[in-house]
Amino acid sequence: MARIIALQTHDIRFPTSRTLDGSDAMNPDPDYSASYVRLRTDAADGLEGHGFVFTIGRGNDVQVAALRALEGHLVGRDVAETLDDLGGVWRELVHDSQLRWLGPEKGIMHMAIGAAVNALWDLRAKRAGVPLWRLLSSLSPEQIVDLVDFRYLTDALTREEALTLLRSAEPSRAERESRLLSEGYPAYTTTPGWLGYDDDKLAKLCREAIAQGFTHIKLKVGADLDDDLRRLRIARDICGPDVKIAVDANQRWDVAEAIRWTKALEQFDVAWVEEPTSPDDVLAHAAIAKAVAPVPVATGEHVANRVVFKQLLQAGALSVLQLDATRVAGVNENIAILLLAAKFGVPVCPHAGGVGLCEAVQHLAMFDFVAVSGSLDGRVIEFVDHLHEHFVTPVEVRDGRYLAPTAPGAGTEMYPTSIAEYTHA
Amino acid sequence: MARIIALQTHDIRFPTSRTLDGSDAMNPDPDYSASYVRLRTDAADGLEGHGFVFTIGRGNDVQVAALRALEGHLVGRDVAETLDDLGGVWRELVHDSQLRWLGPEKGIMHMAIGAAVNALWDLRAKRAGVPLWRLLSSLSPEQIVDLVDFRYLTDALTREEALTLLRSAEPSRAERESRLLSEGYPAYTTTPGWLGYDDDKLAKLCREAIAQGFTHIKLKVGADLDDDLRRLRIARDICGPDVKIAVDANQRWDVAEAIRWTKALEQFDVAWVEEPTSPDDVLAHAAIAKAVAPVPVATGEHVANRVVFKQLLQAGALSVLQLDATRVAGVNENIAILLLAAKFGVPVCPHAGGVGLCEAVQHLAMFDFVAVSGSLDGRVIEFVDHLHEHFVTPVEVRDGRYLAPTAPGAGTEMYPTSIAEYTHA
Repeated sequence: MARIIALQTHDIRFPTSRTLDGSDAMNPDPDYSASYVRLRTDAADGLEGHGFVFTIGRGNDVQVAALRALEGHLVGRDVAETLDDLGGVWRELVHDSQLRWLGPEKGIMHMAIGAAVNALWDLRAKRAGVPLWRLLSSLSPEQIVDLVDFRYLTDALTREEALTLLRSAEPSRAERESRLLSEGYPAYTTTPGWLGYDDDKLAKLCREAIAQGFTHIKLKVGADLDDDLRRLRIARDICGPDVKIAVDANQRWDVAEAIRWTKALEQFDVAWVEEPTSPDDVLAHAAIAKAVAPVPVATGEHVANRVVFKQLLQAGALSVLQLDATRVAGVNENIAILLLAAKFGVPVCPHAGGVGLCEAVQHLAMFDFVAVSGSLDGRVIEFVDHLHEHFVTPVEVRDGRYLAPTAPGAGTEMYPTSIAEYTHA
Repeated sequence: MARIIALQTHDIRFPTSRTLDGSDAMNPDPDYSASYVRLRTDAADGLEGHGFVFTIGRGNDVQVAALRALEGHLVGRDVAETLDDLGGVWRELVHDSQLRWLGPEKGIMHMAIGAAVNALWDLRAKRAGVPLWRLLSSLSPEQIVDLVDFRYLTDALTREEALTLLRSAEPSRAERESRLLSEGYPAYTTTPGWLGYDDDKLAKLCREAIAQGFTHIKLKVGADLDDDLRRLRIARDICGPDVKIAVDANQRWDVAEAIRWTKALEQFDVAWVEEPTSPDDVLAHAAIAKAVAPVPVATGEHVANRVVFKQLLQAGALSVLQLDATRVAGVNENIAILLLAAKFGVPVCPHAGGVGLCEAVQHLAMFDFVAVSGSLDGRVIEFVDHLHEHFVTPVEVRDGRYLAPTAPGAGTEMYPTSIAEYTHA
């Protein structure tokens, strides 16, 4: 009988602020970082579960301290029993009343639980010898809803409704799985659009994105309206009318400013306006969405938990749901969010980039296509070509599409050499 | 020229779970704790600024790590300049883009900033030789609004509207200040109502509360409806019709259950129903408030920031706003929340108890009375008779009222002996 014998943590930071990769109106100088957790067992297979929280530098040590606070919940557990009841483990971690006080269900403690939960899923998928998206897509509707905590969701989605959704997608799962394996999943790229890049670099990167087969890009906006108008004109001129261009304000605006600014940018045929204001502000997003229609409003990478997503959907406040692999409490909570999005008929276009977010979130989007929403309409996964070389199973993006991963696991394992080289002193 | 020369932290935990003090439907066994921060300077006066985050045990070490992450922002600063611009300091801390990623503006990092901000206010009040409530009440309307960050608030409250509110209360400040000094501020007590207490202890503590002059008590509910009905009947029988009895569900319910349960308890003339569901769920609170009217809905002790409070007010989702001294980013953010409450005409009835929350929050309620809302109507500060002996300037509650504190500072300083004795090993 194998047990979890160690929870190891690493404070990993990449000095990305030197090149202004990842610079936007709220985050001028991020150092892309990972609070990294490894679960080791005494099983003969030697497999480990890896997970992480993506952060942007300072405070990564605090996030690591939160991971360590979970040691008592995980070390010593029977591996097989634990992995067979990840719904139960999720509830135990999230409902630890003393730890819950530190959120509740938001911020550093909640993200730490997410990383630990994702590490458990990584281990389970490795032991099953399949990529996470296939593991999830092989579960029955009942097994899937058992992973979800419906507390605080039942006014929008009950267990029975979730089962009905999943059952209706079940007969055609195999068809979509083979389509994914042959065609991949659509991607869009944010690589051209960081605010710290000058106009020439923007133009060059737009041309490269098109040459690489992307039909959808995203530009950061929100620091200066004249700059934004000029940069959007450059991008639209290069891209022509058929490439989608989304804009991302990274929470810079209040309601009136968001409406005014979005209306000024609308002439460039904006695919969506992302994070117009505080991610906590359901009512503001609803007011903005109503005023800027038909421009779709997108948000999610900073949405703290399923309860806030539920409200954004109930209020008609978002048209594009941007799932994030490491903001909420891991795979289980993201399944709840996928189910909510399917119930409300809103497409999920995951946030990615950062450190390993592409590697992690692709599994959730592909599971959504196979077993939940059953659709690719209006759906794209963000892609940024950063830091993939540090991952054992890096994403493969070709002709603007994510290839379906085939290696066992959740995509969250970094090379030991990368961990060692970028561990923060 | 004096500088801040050290930020010292302490992980302080009281073993309160042994007696089930503080037990409720979500928190069966809290160990009341404080993540404590001391700011030392090289000024000749030897004064220090003290602040803390209240937690309930596990994870207090993570909260302390978050306090330490602020050292680089504070140590080395000029004391006088820093204390003269606490609005600027607040913005610098809350808008540190790398730390902000860990919330944003919620959870462990945000609460750490709150404790540091409160420690700065403690130092400023001590240097001025006045209690915090009088210091705040001596500021001009312009100085007060300079402390507030109106980002994300302007759809509900602008700087100009806040100034108008403050100016209209200004001429009568002195009158209310002397009334406070002579009469104190109304309190209510939660001491009788913890879920872990048996019926005899409940009855005895109700009698004691009335003997002590309280005219308002609160009972924890939400674990078992039959138990709640029995306990409320006991309390109402002892209290008679003139004592107010509030109930507190500590987030246990979904919408439908909250409505059903509250309607079942309404027969006992419930003063308010507190935390019926997730503190993040503005729309659920609005639905519950509408369905259970005229029973008022109360929440706040777990509301993450001013943006969520703003929405609760906009949506008509709460009738009693329960300010907490250590959940949001300190005095400055609580001033924003007091201004929002005044704009919407909703009474503020602060959450207290825990470790030092009574000592800290009374200053904010008294400042509200003197300089913001100008009213005591429907307003009471929670009181729990726990752990006050560890504070240098403990609250004084007599005949069911908080006496206005007169000692300099924010009330947040613990005795060195208490810090030493209860430091977690």
